[in-house]
Amino acid sequence: MISVKMNELVKNSSAIRAMFEEGKKMAAKYGKENVYDFSLGNPSIVPPATVKQAIFDILNEESEMFVHGYMSNAGYEDVRKTVADYLNKTHGTNFDEGNIVMTVGAAGGLNIALKAVTNPGEEIIVIAPYFGEYDNYISNVDGVRVVISPDIERFSINFEELEQKISPKTRALIVNSPNNPTGVVYGEEDIKRLAAVLEAKQKEYGTTIFLIADEPYRELVFGGAKVPYLTKYYKNTFVGYSFSKSLSLPGERIGYLTIPSEMEDFENVVGAVSVANRIMGFVNAPSLMQRVIGRVIGQTSDVSVYEENKNILYKALTEYGYSCVEPQGTFYMFPKSIIPDDKEFCETAKQYHLVLVAGSTFGCPGHFRIAYCVDKQTVLNSLDAFKKLAEHYKK
Amino acid sequence: MISVKMNELVKNSSAIRAMFEEGKKMAAKYGKENVYDFSLGNPSIVPPATVKQAIFDILNEESEMFVHGYMSNAGYEDVRKTVADYLNKTHGTNFDEGNIVMTVGAAGGLNIALKAVTNPGEEIIVIAPYFGEYDNYISNVDGVRVVISPDIERFSINFEELEQKISPKTRALIVNSPNNPTGVVYGEEDIKRLAAVLEAKQKEYGTTIFLIADEPYRELVFGGAKVPYLTKYYKNTFVGYSFSKSLSLPGERIGYLTIPSEMEDFENVVGAVSVANRIMGFVNAPSLMQRVIGRVIGQTSDVSVYEENKNILYKALTEYGYSCVEPQGTFYMFPKSIIPDDKEFCETAKQYHLVLVAGSTFGCPGHFRIAYCVDKQTVLNSLDAFKKLAEHYKK
Repeated sequence: MISVKMNELVKNSSAIRAMFEEGKKMAAKYGKENVYDFSLGNPSIVPPATVKQAIFDILNEESEMFVHGYMSNAGYEDVRKTVADYLNKTHGTNFDEGNIVMTVGAAGGLNIALKAVTNPGEEIIVIAPYFGEYDNYISNVDGVRVVISPDIERFSINFEELEQKISPKTRALIVNSPNNPTGVVYGEEDIKRLAAVLEAKQKEYGTTIFLIADEPYRELVFGGAKVPYLTKYYKNTFVGYSFSKSLSLPGERIGYLTIPSEMEDFENVVGAVSVANRIMGFVNAPSLMQRVIGRVIGQTSDVSVYEENKNILYKALTEYGYSCVEPQGTFYMFPKSIIPDDKEFCETAKQYHLVLVAGSTFGCPGHFRIAYCVDKQTVLNSLDAFKKLAEHYKK
Repeated sequence: MISVKMNELVKNSSAIRAMFEEGKKMAAKYGKENVYDFSLGNPSIVPPATVKQAIFDILNEESEMFVHGYMSNAGYEDVRKTVADYLNKTHGTNFDEGNIVMTVGAAGGLNIALKAVTNPGEEIIVIAPYFGEYDNYISNVDGVRVVISPDIERFSINFEELEQKISPKTRALIVNSPNNPTGVVYGEEDIKRLAAVLEAKQKEYGTTIFLIADEPYRELVFGGAKVPYLTKYYKNTFVGYSFSKSLSLPGERIGYLTIPSEMEDFENVVGAVSVANRIMGFVNAPSLMQRVIGRVIGQTSDVSVYEENKNILYKALTEYGYSCVEPQGTFYMFPKSIIPDDKEFCETAKQYHLVLVAGSTFGCPGHFRIAYCVDKQTVLNSLDAFKKLAEHYKK
């Protein structure tokens, strides 16, 4: 009785969620401390104490009608101004409140950006490996997904293939850096090259190609890695941001979209994004959480925990014979599976109580994802299991 | 550069919002106290004090990782159980947590219900006058809107036309009682008749027809009017609820969908609704607000204010010669415009500093909507303007 499209989706549901459910079952069977569940990208560290304080202060200082009330579909003007000012200070940009639309997480932001610009049948490019939900977001607007195959040497962008696959029907390209699942950060050179390719193709076809940057991991970077702010390199860029990871607030669904004034047809695009926020049923980002952001912008949870976990895992796994591009951010890494069949590899991993997600889930077979947003002790305890898993295939 | 569909939407934007903007301009020009803005359905009364207390208690008593964290896409199990228990106690139903999906307001709920069941090209029926956003929700899933023309005598359902217009392609019917814009409540007889029509048509065509009840105004009823709980009359019913109006929390985007176990293909439908919550970008209803609902379910703001406003307006307007079906709930009324051209009528109303919304906006010309969710003094002050507006056309 459900729709045909949904029937398939329900059957397959989320492979990541499925592994997570599997992990819970294993924990029940073997004891939680004996299962190393690296399946879900769920922050493992508490929000900064200032979040709680901000909520108390807001409820004590501001009117309830204002704090819980309707505002413009784009969000509270003062909060948007605060976000703009923060971005300007951090990235040397020149935004004001008109460039910011508060959204229901980055997922909400990406959906309304796609809704605003996509006509049915237009092509949306994704770069493998990529977060599988993009497929659904593209399908929501009847777009056609085009996948760029992975550059498995360094998990940057396969530029030759990108140039070949951009067509007159290309409407947008989704990029995600710091990247889920690889942990790679696109450096400035890559971004400049990307911008040049897009500019050239726009000119060649006389079209507008939007770059949609999905950036929930922007602050989760290691060794001082720099994440270029993409609107500075390419004017037709939407930046989708979420506070889910940086402030450990994934359940609250709070984020924003940045839309630079230089974007073609800027006024209409901003109008369309606001209307999309309304008509897709979001209406506006949750109001109290918007006001919280207005007070804690620029702060983060203690994300150094993730770097520590990465260091432990990367060192150990490479010693055990795993091959892996070293992550520069996020809380993911994406090593090669010891055998080409990544699904079988993840099945075998379960024998050693390791819950991992197969690379195929991200459009990149032969690899697997470790979500190391877990406590350090779990990482340390898991090392022997990773060692045995590698040895399993050397027998 | 925006999509063709969006281009139209941005141009027309929301007629209601446009009137609201107009009202703000008029307030700036003539002084706020001299403009009677009845354009927006924005609650005018404070949330109950228990909402603030609940937020404080939650933050003091529950773990931050839990309160702000991910949960199942359907929402926290304990909150869903609390909602189910409340419904059972209130309506004699038999729900448990598996029948409740927490949503981003009723707008989010309606969108995921439609997404779950609609195939492109299937027909979704709406009953005029109706909330214009339904058009967009139907368009989001590539459904075909079918409008039942208004029963202007009592603003119930035009059953003869409904029977004619249900086709083998009918997938769902959206009903909204207490109704925006008329304030009418569908009584038990109407609901029984509606259920009988739907049952008969399902049998005739061998199809499943879903009833989608949009119920954000359920608690805003006058004179003890009863609002039947529709799952008790027709098993293929989704009930979409929002706390925006009952708790005066419209900015927080918190609501739920009820899906009865008796619904055909129940397990799959619940699965599809949860997946739709995820893939449309909502992911889950805002977490802290879910937990607030778990503590304040069954409470409301002091909604008697709306009944008082209704009584004042209804008595005065009928005296002045307006013809109006008396509202039994909501904070809206929907009188006949004195002249057939409702748009011209609302334009003229501005001369008297009245900001009203034309009935055409709701698919019912010849009427206008008054949103009397304003303070009582504004209602009292506006009466003379309504009188002069009626006299304007008697000259």
